[in-house]
Amino acid sequence: MSEDRGRPLCVLLTDFPLADPYAGVMKGVVLGGAPDAVLVDLAHGLPAGDIAWAALQLREQAGYFPAGAVFLAVVDPGVGTARRILAAEAGLYRFVGPDNGLLHPALVALSGAAGPQIVAVDAEAVGLAPRSETFHGRDVMAPAAARLLAGAALETLGRPVDDPVALALPAARRAGAGWVGAVLAADGYGNLITSIESALLEGGEWHVYLEGRDLGPVCRTFGSVASGAVVALVGSLRRIEIAVRDGSARDRLRAAPGMQVEVRPRS
Amino acid sequence: MSEDRGRPLCVLLTDFPLADPYAGVMKGVVLGGAPDAVLVDLAHGLPAGDIAWAALQLREQAGYFPAGAVFLAVVDPGVGTARRILAAEAGLYRFVGPDNGLLHPALVALSGAAGPQIVAVDAEAVGLAPRSETFHGRDVMAPAAARLLAGAALETLGRPVDDPVALALPAARRAGAGWVGAVLAADGYGNLITSIESALLEGGEWHVYLEGRDLGPVCRTFGSVASGAVVALVGSLRRIEIAVRDGSARDRLRAAPGMQVEVRPRS
Amino acid sequence: MSEDRGRPLCVLLTDFPLADPYAGVMKGVVLGGAPDAVLVDLAHGLPAGDIAWAALQLREQAGYFPAGAVFLAVVDPGVGTARRILAAEAGLYRFVGPDNGLLHPALVALSGAAGPQIVAVDAEAVGLAPRSETFHGRDVMAPAAARLLAGAALETLGRPVDDPVALALPAARRAGAGWVGAVLAADGYGNLITSIESALLEGGEWHVYLEGRDLGPVCRTFGSVASGAVVALVGSLRRIEIAVRDGSARDRLRAAPGMQVEVRPRS
Repeated sequence: MSEDRGRPLCVLLTDFPLADPYAGVMKGVVLGGAPDAVLVDLAHGLPAGDIAWAALQLREQAGYFPAGAVFLAVVDPGVGTARRILAAEAGLYRFVGPDNGLLHPALVALSGAAGPQIVAVDAEAVGLAPRSETFHGRDVMAPAAARLLAGAALETLGRPVDDPVALALPAARRAGAGWVGAVLAADGYGNLITSIESALLEGGEWHVYLEGRDLGPVCRTFGSVASGAVVALVGSLRRIEIAVRDGSARDRLRAAPGMQVEVRPRS
Repeated sequence: MSEDRGRPLCVLLTDFPLADPYAGVMKGVVLGGAPDAVLVDLAHGLPAGDIAWAALQLREQAGYFPAGAVFLAVVDPGVGTARRILAAEAGLYRFVGPDNGLLHPALVALSGAAGPQIVAVDAEAVGLAPRSETFHGRDVMAPAAARLLAGAALETLGRPVDDPVALALPAARRAGAGWVGAVLAADGYGNLITSIESALLEGGEWHVYLEGRDLGPVCRTFGSVASGAVVALVGSLRRIEIAVRDGSARDRLRAAPGMQVEVRPRS
Repeated sequence: MSEDRGRPLCVLLTDFPLADPYAGVMKGVVLGGAPDAVLVDLAHGLPAGDIAWAALQLREQAGYFPAGAVFLAVVDPGVGTARRILAAEAGLYRFVGPDNGLLHPALVALSGAAGPQIVAVDAEAVGLAPRSETFHGRDVMAPAAARLLAGAALETLGRPVDDPVALALPAARRAGAGWVGAVLAADGYGNLITSIESALLEGGEWHVYLEGRDLGPVCRTFGSVASGAVVALVGSLRRIEIAVRDGSARDRLRAAPGMQVEVRPRS
C-alpha cells in the first residue's frame, strides 16, 4: 500500500509524561525500522492510565489525519502482563497499541461495515531483543509500527484476532425530555468535556446542569458570555463542554471526572 | 514561490495546553492539505489567552527560521466571535492566525518599508466543513496554512485587509537618566523577562530595581553571581531579565507580570 | 559520511521548560543551516540544571536511534562562562553540547576502544552573530549541529580536545551480599529510578529497601501487585525502579533524589 501513500506517517498518542524521554525513544526505534517515516505527535502526557479518555481522543482525532497514517497509541498500565499487543487496519488507517480497549472505539468507528482487520503482534518475531517487561511501547509497539511504515502487510506481524478487548465509551442516556451524562475530563484550560454529544440536542434551546446546578443555556461560543462567566457550549469534540470564559471551569466549579451533567429542553 | 524554497516549513505557536491533542490535530489537518509539509513546534502551552506575550515571542523568534516558513499561530480567546482570521506575508515569511493583534508586531517588524500583505481568510471557501465555533485553529487556520504550504498565493485565501487589529507591545519609558518598564512574564525556569530592551542601555553600568528594590548591576551572565543569588542580565530576547542562579526568580522575589522594573545608570 | 546515511537526523535533549520557545527556536536555527534535517525531540523539560540525570538519559537512549544521528543536548547552567562547547563523534553517532559532563558518559559508552573524537567548537567561526551570553544552545550549539548535519567534518568545527569534563554517573556499591545505591530521580508517573543496575542482580530473589524500609521483592512487572501497592521492578533503563501500581511512588513514599536504596538477596 505504501507506494501510493507518499511519506509514511506515524502519529503518536501516549500518556507518557511530557518531561520524560519515553515518547522520544520510541521515535528513535520507529526511525530505526522505517527511516523515511514522518513522525507527528498527536498528544503525550494524557492522564496516566486513563484508557477511556485516550480511546475517545484517538477515535475523534484520527479522521483529521491523512489516509495511510499509522497510529502508535500507548496507554498501557498492563505492560508486562499477558495482555496482547495489537496491530490493526480500519478504513484508511492502521493502528498499533495494547489490547486493553484503547484502539477499539477507533477501530469500530473507522472500519465501516467490513469491520477492522486485527492481528496480535508476535513480540518475539517483531520486537527488540532483549525486551523489557516494563516498556513495550519501545520494545514491541514501536518496532511493529515501524514494520507497517516500512511497507509490511498487517498479516505478517502476527496471527489474526477476532476478540479484541472491547471498550464502550461513556454515553449519555435519556432522562425525560433531556439527557444525562457525566464529565469525562478537564482539558488543560480547565474546560470540562462531557459525555453528551451535541448531535443529541437538535433544535430548540437546552439548559445545562452540573450536579443539579443550572449553568444556563448552551451557547454558541465563548464570546456569548462575559469574561469570567460560566458558559456551556458545543466543544471541538462535538460534545457539550462547560467552560469559564478566560478562566478554568475545573477550578471555578470544583469539578472532577464523573460528575453528573444533565441537559434539558428549555421549559 | 514554493519551488525555490525546498520543503515547505510550517512552524506552530499556540497556547494549547501541552497535554491536550489540540496542536496535534492541527498538524493532521495541515498534512492533509500539504502532504509534503515539515512541521516544527516553536512553542505550545503558552499562557492561556495572553496575546501580547505570544505576539512578542512570534516577533522575536520568527527571524531564526529559514526563509519561506509559514507560521501558524493560535492564541484565540475570541474564537467564534466576529473576529477575522488573517493570512499574511511579511518579508520572507507568511503567517496565519486570528485578527486579535497576535500577528501584528511580527508583521510590522519583518515586512520592512513595503508593509505586510494581509488577507481575511474566507472560512467558507478555505475551512473544513462542518466547522466548529470553538476551534478555528483546526477548522480554518490549519487549512489556510496548508493552502499556503501547498503553493497557493496569499490573495487566493481571501480579500485584502488594511486594518488589522494593532498591538503595541509594552515598551520601556524614560525616567530621568534611566528607564521604567515592567515584568512581562516568567519563563519556565522562573526567569523574569522585562519590557526593557538592552539596546537602551548602551555604555556605562546600570542598576536594576524591581518594585523599588535594588537588585544590583546588569551582569554579563548567570555565572557572574554565586549559586542562589539574584542576577539581572541581558536575556536571549535582548531584554533585561531577572534571574536567580540555579533557582527561580519568580518564586524567590514573589514576582508577577506587571511589576515595575527600573534601570538607572550607576551614580 | 552523510551520503550513506539518508536524511540527516537531529535529536534534541534539553532542560528547556516545556512551555517556552527555547527548544523551538533552536530548531529554526538547525533548519536554517541544514534545510534537509529531520528533527526529533528525545526530551525537553528535564530537571533544570541536572546534568547527571540528563547525561544518564543521553547515554541510555542514544543507542535506540539510527546510526548517523546528531544529538543536540543542552543542559547548560554555565552558559556564558568560560566552559567550552563540544562537538564529538562516538561510534555511529555525533553529539553537540556544553563541556560540563553532559556528553561524557554517552561518549565513553558508545565510542568503544578507540575512544571518542572531540573538538571545542569555535564559537566565533561557527556561531550566530551577534551571540548572546545567555543562550548558547541557540547561538552556538544549534549552528554547530547544523554544520554536522549539512555534511561538515567534525574537525572543521574547532580544535581537538583531549580533556573533556568527565562525569561519573552514580553507581551502586557492594554492601555485604547486596548493593547500596540511591534514588536518581522520579519520572512523570512518580516512578523512582535508582542507581542500581539490574545486571548486578543475576539469579535468586532480591529484596529492595528504601531508606531501610522493606519494599518487598523485585517483581517482573507492574501487574505483579495489586492496584495501589508498592512494587520494585526492573525498569526500562535496566535499573531497579520503585513504583506504585496505578499511582505515584514519589508521592506515596515521600521520596526524593538521593534517598538510599538497598537490595539484598533473600535470606
